[in-house]
Amino acid sequence: MAPRYAPSLWSRLPPVALLLEVIFIVLFAFFVEIEELKDKKNQEFLYFYAIFQDVHVMVFLGFGFVSAFLVRYGFSGVGFGLLVAAMVVQWATFINAFLPSFYFSHFNWPVHINLNSLAEAELCAASALVAMGAVHGKTNPTQLLLFGLLEVTGFVVTQKLMDTLFKLTTLFYQSGRIYATMQMYVFGALFGVMTSWVLYRSDAEPRHEKEKFDSKTGLFAMLGLLFLWMFWPSMNFMQVKDIRVVYSTYLAQAVSAVTAMAVSVLSSPKGKINLVHVQGASLAGGVAIGAARTVHDPWVAMVIGMCAGLLSALGYRYMKDHMLFAFECHDTCSVLSVYAIPGILGTFGHLILQLTSTDDLTIAIRFAVHFICVVFISISMSLVTGSITGFLLKLKFWKPQQDRKCFDDQAFWEFPHLAVHK
Amino acid sequence: MAPRYAPSLWSRLPPVALLLEVIFIVLFAFFVEIEELKDKKNQEFLYFYAIFQDVHVMVFLGFGFVSAFLVRYGFSGVGFGLLVAAMVVQWATFINAFLPSFYFSHFNWPVHINLNSLAEAELCAASALVAMGAVHGKTNPTQLLLFGLLEVTGFVVTQKLMDTLFKLTTLFYQSGRIYATMQMYVFGALFGVMTSWVLYRSDAEPRHEKEKFDSKTGLFAMLGLLFLWMFWPSMNFMQVKDIRVVYSTYLAQAVSAVTAMAVSVLSSPKGKINLVHVQGASLAGGVAIGAARTVHDPWVAMVIGMCAGLLSALGYRYMKDHMLFAFECHDTCSVLSVYAIPGILGTFGHLILQLTSTDDLTIAIRFAVHFICVVFISISMSLVTGSITGFLLKLKFWKPQQDRKCFDDQAFWEFPHLAVHK
Amino acid sequence: MAPRYAPSLWSRLPPVALLLEVIFIVLFAFFVEIEELKDKKNQEFLYFYAIFQDVHVMVFLGFGFVSAFLVRYGFSGVGFGLLVAAMVVQWATFINAFLPSFYFSHFNWPVHINLNSLAEAELCAASALVAMGAVHGKTNPTQLLLFGLLEVTGFVVTQKLMDTLFKLTTLFYQSGRIYATMQMYVFGALFGVMTSWVLYRSDAEPRHEKEKFDSKTGLFAMLGLLFLWMFWPSMNFMQVKDIRVVYSTYLAQAVSAVTAMAVSVLSSPKGKINLVHVQGASLAGGVAIGAARTVHDPWVAMVIGMCAGLLSALGYRYMKDHMLFAFECHDTCSVLSVYAIPGILGTFGHLILQLTSTDDLTIAIRFAVHFICVVFISISMSLVTGSITGFLLKLKFWKPQQDRKCFDDQAFWEFPHLAVHK
Repeated sequence: MAPRYAPSLWSRLPPVALLLEVIFIVLFAFFVEIEELKDKKNQEFLYFYAIFQDVHVMVFLGFGFVSAFLVRYGFSGVGFGLLVAAMVVQWATFINAFLPSFYFSHFNWPVHINLNSLAEAELCAASALVAMGAVHGKTNPTQLLLFGLLEVTGFVVTQKLMDTLFKLTTLFYQSGRIYATMQMYVFGALFGVMTSWVLYRSDAEPRHEKEKFDSKTGLFAMLGLLFLWMFWPSMNFMQVKDIRVVYSTYLAQAVSAVTAMAVSVLSSPKGKINLVHVQGASLAGGVAIGAARTVHDPWVAMVIGMCAGLLSALGYRYMKDHMLFAFECHDTCSVLSVYAIPGILGTFGHLILQLTSTDDLTIAIRFAVHFICVVFISISMSLVTGSITGFLLKLKFWKPQQDRKCFDDQAFWEFPHLAVHK
Repeated sequence: MAPRYAPSLWSRLPPVALLLEVIFIVLFAFFVEIEELKDKKNQEFLYFYAIFQDVHVMVFLGFGFVSAFLVRYGFSGVGFGLLVAAMVVQWATFINAFLPSFYFSHFNWPVHINLNSLAEAELCAASALVAMGAVHGKTNPTQLLLFGLLEVTGFVVTQKLMDTLFKLTTLFYQSGRIYATMQMYVFGALFGVMTSWVLYRSDAEPRHEKEKFDSKTGLFAMLGLLFLWMFWPSMNFMQVKDIRVVYSTYLAQAVSAVTAMAVSVLSSPKGKINLVHVQGASLAGGVAIGAARTVHDPWVAMVIGMCAGLLSALGYRYMKDHMLFAFECHDTCSVLSVYAIPGILGTFGHLILQLTSTDDLTIAIRFAVHFICVVFISISMSLVTGSITGFLLKLKFWKPQQDRKCFDDQAFWEFPHLAVHK
Repeated sequence: MAPRYAPSLWSRLPPVALLLEVIFIVLFAFFVEIEELKDKKNQEFLYFYAIFQDVHVMVFLGFGFVSAFLVRYGFSGVGFGLLVAAMVVQWATFINAFLPSFYFSHFNWPVHINLNSLAEAELCAASALVAMGAVHGKTNPTQLLLFGLLEVTGFVVTQKLMDTLFKLTTLFYQSGRIYATMQMYVFGALFGVMTSWVLYRSDAEPRHEKEKFDSKTGLFAMLGLLFLWMFWPSMNFMQVKDIRVVYSTYLAQAVSAVTAMAVSVLSSPKGKINLVHVQGASLAGGVAIGAARTVHDPWVAMVIGMCAGLLSALGYRYMKDHMLFAFECHDTCSVLSVYAIPGILGTFGHLILQLTSTDDLTIAIRFAVHFICVVFISISMSLVTGSITGFLLKLKFWKPQQDRKCFDDQAFWEFPHLAVHK
């Protein structure tokens, strides 16, 4: 018999969330200040504010609505997305500023909040929301909250670790940290998949009836997808800070959206398009370019977009079920196909592009070794921290929803009894 | 027996709306011109255009969709929101420019339309849409149109009154009008509640069956909420014109969204989250910071956000029904909890913050007296003008929908008869 | 008996789409480069990026969701909108740069992609999406893809033709091409209507049951409309590059939204508002101002908005059915009323405004003759190319959906069988 849903105090949302908020307020009171802007910076603020708002929309609306395709999980997808993102940006603002001082012992308190620090916090939140895609529907809000905070902590620690390990490698114009940021989506996706793998419940049906979508939830997810898709050039610009990435992302995404639809028809027994697969694979182009960073030829961007769309659509169609049956790893939004595979593809694209632009073989080999180390370490970190998070969240203490209440809003949200004829 | 819906000519939308439009066109032909921009202003235009567009999205999409949570009121919520906002921005553009000349007799005709005057008009429209939240579902479109125009007129007159009364108080760097603008949401909410109180119909059921939400209308409302929530920093920046308000609004809203969800669980008998309560209370942080204006410490912003979220969520849960049963005042979108309470909280936050930053006791006392006068007068104005509007709209002449057609699109919108199996 | 849906290889989406993508990649590899920006241009980029993103949202989200009102056509409306737009922007980027070199033989390869070239491509995509509104629901995705590419080719060729024919007319400060761009929506709408007229199937019911909307699809369409409506000032600014067009569009749209609602009530037998008619007619003001271009008096903009809203709402109510029964021309989204009529109104508005601002009768007459030639040629081109496209797509080869699968997602999209009780 399944355990009754009778959570202890600290497995409930209110005490955990409110306690964490109080802790954050205390941390901010001691360590954080709002930056007062001078006239010139004022202008710069207005330059970047529109791009920041694009990313803001992606983080708080896009990722939430994309995960609302599950037929009975709309409120949770959107609502818990807001909850986790709102919590994570606060924590990331603090930890992003705290950790460098910790490592390098140049304490420059108080930290100043500006548009840049909020933008970095939003990128961390994006990484957490990507990871959350793998565990949606099988965890309660308290678990999701802790999951988000742990993912961001792991991601920021990994970045700083790269900075420490590779900061002396002045041979290359970019530090290790920048290459770690490339792994944003890969880190998130692998972290989420590992957690989901540890959390696997054998009692839940292999393919849950509530994991399907209907004609209306599909449209809500399409809305979320479109906001992610349209604003992904802004997201990549914010990371790479080179305008050419806007154009290459734009082209790669256009190609990957078309490819995704074509491949979805090809791989379907009845020759029909699967909306959810298309949603995932349309993003693949943007993810791959975000990881490849230095794509300056439009046709290269388009080829990367095509390969990413192709692999991602095939992955969504075949790998999701394969992962479930062969490895007992359930990946709700198929983040492995949507973010991890295109991200790794883009990473190796970056390696190849950098190598082909160098004439000196010694430098090329040193770059390749250094680069592969960074990628290897950040992937290992995501696997390890993801598993640890999984074991922490698997504790009976947290009392997640029963198996039959998985992927169902009714476990956590009030619904009125409607007598009215719709 | 309820009266049949057989309206007279001037209680119908077409003649009223078209006549008002013709009047507006004549007023604009005589008094309004479009400003021709010089090169430098051209740049400034592009700076602020993105922020203006954020507010534009809030006014025309956000407020409309937020009120679309009622299970059968989606078309009216969004459609009448567009109707009233489109009408109100025209009227506010004119009256905002007309009234100062009237008072101070420096006729500088024609008025020039620029981004600034449209931005002020949109803020007035936001105030009218806040007020409309209280009367949604119980009034016909003609009534809503007049309600919106009267609310804006009341709000603009109140602002100019403050200007006249307190313009000589050069002791303080801000004029009375600025402090009146702080009351934007409080004015709107109290105006709407007073109108709704006067319009109360004892025949309608105390708790209407159609006031509930379902899983799809909840998501549409969530979409509206997210646009309001994400762009509220832009709205506050447009009022305060200090970049620090963007950061403090951002933090306060993050905290109030988390607090709203926690308090919604705490105050629910079954320990579940109410989506509509969360929607209201998530905005509370932004409203409070908008009223508090000069919050420069992040932790103060977060504390204000927490208190606002707490009070607003409790207010939505308990006060809405209490207002209905005890005072026979029906507040459809609970604007009292969502806008009035956080607004008043923020106002007093501003008073305290200003007082603690002054050393001179005399100045402090004079400021406090002056400030409380402004607040008191603007609240009184909103109560009085709201009641008058209520009595005007209660006239039998307007023929609102029958009681059983309240909160129902079918009173005003064509629906096709669907034979198709969905 | 209706023919079975058994398409040949090249009538299917995957081979056509993938082949076209490969061709595009090859073209881009040879002819297109991404522009590297200097510091000053960098700033300009950030100026216009917010406006570009507004138009991006209109093209990829707005037009798609507006056509999602059909009760069973949501996935196709939004999904095929994304497919066609993603394909068309690639093609338009190339052909926009290729054609002038072809005509004037100043080969300046490679073409540089910058924000300006993408913006022009998006305007072309908007024209194609307008045209697609007329053929939605009666064509398969392969047909839609070819339709979009042909429409854009026709539109770009027409523009360049104007340039060639009228480039020596230095009497007027604007070239023939600019006046052809004015016809963007008129060209698209007439092109689509001609194609739809040729494609007419007598077997489909005169008024299809699935052409109706329900309460949820109406809201999705409202969402699309609002994004189009709110960002239309940006769209017009991008074309006219004069800030005054933002204000005149803003005012014209406000008036046309109010007029649309009033006229919808007036023209309804039951005195109720039709949501879909309002959606179409609310846009009319923006379309008309986009065509009228040089409206500098607010009241003139408002009068144009009122006339456009009036004609468009009446057209949607009466002309759509009339076109179907009298001319056997089925216009799914009534693009004739929404885009063609307001566009022609605005065009003649522009003519009158230009004529009244000239004192010299000779210049006025020459301008009028020149202008009417441009309008006449571009309208003829759209009718001719639209008909040719229609005959191409009518070929049995393409195997469109059966009559009973018209306006139905199930012909092209996978739907899960839901056992779950919603």
